[in-house]
Amino acid sequence: MEKAVILVSGGMDSLVTAAIAAEKYEPAFLHLNYGQRTEKREFKAFNDIADHYRVTNRLVVNIDYLAEIGGSSLTDKDIEVSKADMNRKEIPTSYVPFRNANILSIAVSWAEVIDAKKIFIGAVEEDSSGYPDCREIFYDAFNKVIALGTKPETSIEIVTPIIHMKKYEIIKKGAQMNAPFSLSWSCYTNEDKACGECDSCALRLKGFQLAGLVDPIDYVYRPLYSK
Amino acid sequence: MEKAVILVSGGMDSLVTAAIAAEKYEPAFLHLNYGQRTEKREFKAFNDIADHYRVTNRLVVNIDYLAEIGGSSLTDKDIEVSKADMNRKEIPTSYVPFRNANILSIAVSWAEVIDAKKIFIGAVEEDSSGYPDCREIFYDAFNKVIALGTKPETSIEIVTPIIHMKKYEIIKKGAQMNAPFSLSWSCYTNEDKACGECDSCALRLKGFQLAGLVDPIDYVYRPLYSK
Repeated sequence: MEKAVILVSGGMDSLVTAAIAAEKYEPAFLHLNYGQRTEKREFKAFNDIADHYRVTNRLVVNIDYLAEIGGSSLTDKDIEVSKADMNRKEIPTSYVPFRNANILSIAVSWAEVIDAKKIFIGAVEEDSSGYPDCREIFYDAFNKVIALGTKPETSIEIVTPIIHMKKYEIIKKGAQMNAPFSLSWSCYTNEDKACGECDSCALRLKGFQLAGLVDPIDYVYRPLYSK
Repeated sequence: MEKAVILVSGGMDSLVTAAIAAEKYEPAFLHLNYGQRTEKREFKAFNDIADHYRVTNRLVVNIDYLAEIGGSSLTDKDIEVSKADMNRKEIPTSYVPFRNANILSIAVSWAEVIDAKKIFIGAVEEDSSGYPDCREIFYDAFNKVIALGTKPETSIEIVTPIIHMKKYEIIKKGAQMNAPFSLSWSCYTNEDKACGECDSCALRLKGFQLAGLVDPIDYVYRPLYSK
């Protein structure tokens, strides 16, 4: 089996991406800590998911320089986390400048050393809050950088299996594959019970609702969304 | 004056690049520690050069996960540093997998937050030992990733002012601009006196010789190169 590096934040999208990748590849799990507010809870989710899929090759990298650089409500406590607004046009305050390029670069360095051929990332273009680095054209451009910036004999490609899915489709797909949603964590604000109000909670809860399923994790508040 | 982020390793190429950038931009200096053997000496060179150009905006980022990932003689003591071989075809053991993409991603994150419009890097395509991520096509591709992966209103571009120069031309250019070569450090092996034998020393010494100048730093051994 060929190896693949899977970026596992511990959220729902990375969980379903890991489930998809693990069907065809020997998974190596990569997790990033970058001083995000819910870092500890995400790290627990990462390890729980890795245990579930019996992944022995795990790498955890601390990139808290992103918190030092700042510019995001995810890492800077002086910037308020945006409340969910499904009709918002501008990029939310949780956007971490150029975060995914930082993360992918690490993944490529690791993939080149362990001889992995693919890098799986659970980016979602649709309702993913308008982050510029979650779009397919961004990953296409990054694949060109990989081809040019690694050894000629290296062949590494970023794979985004859920990029064009809607949240409810991701949830249905995960449910079909028995992905353990109870182990995943999405909330940007809390570490014990999910808040139910941040962008990430709102997208998750609305997705479960549209999929006709119940999210197994605990919430402080479970809003109902109009379809 | 617009701001520019300058990547300053402390080596000669970054010194001359900083000298060029400082003529037109307010420089912000970025230095990376990644567990390279000569990290302390390079850091001293960085600070000495920053003092020389009176740069107050400095950021030092630790990316020693690259040493943990391994794969290079620069960071892995079990891999021998290649002796200089000007006619070598393959990529030398000092190549750090995808290092420059890691470094540039950090630079872009910082540039986006401090509102810098340019990122200067002293990459040299010619005699730069065949690293794939030192070629202009790599930077062109990376500029596309930046345009796609940052906020729409952001305009950040990588600038490589010495990429097509030969080492002796870089040295002549630096000498014209009174760049303080005595403060810079290039050796991959030693931290007190430069070894004179590693790839980096060999390129530097040969460059000074071809420029008809004398390198002001101390060497254990100063080989003479045939032209």
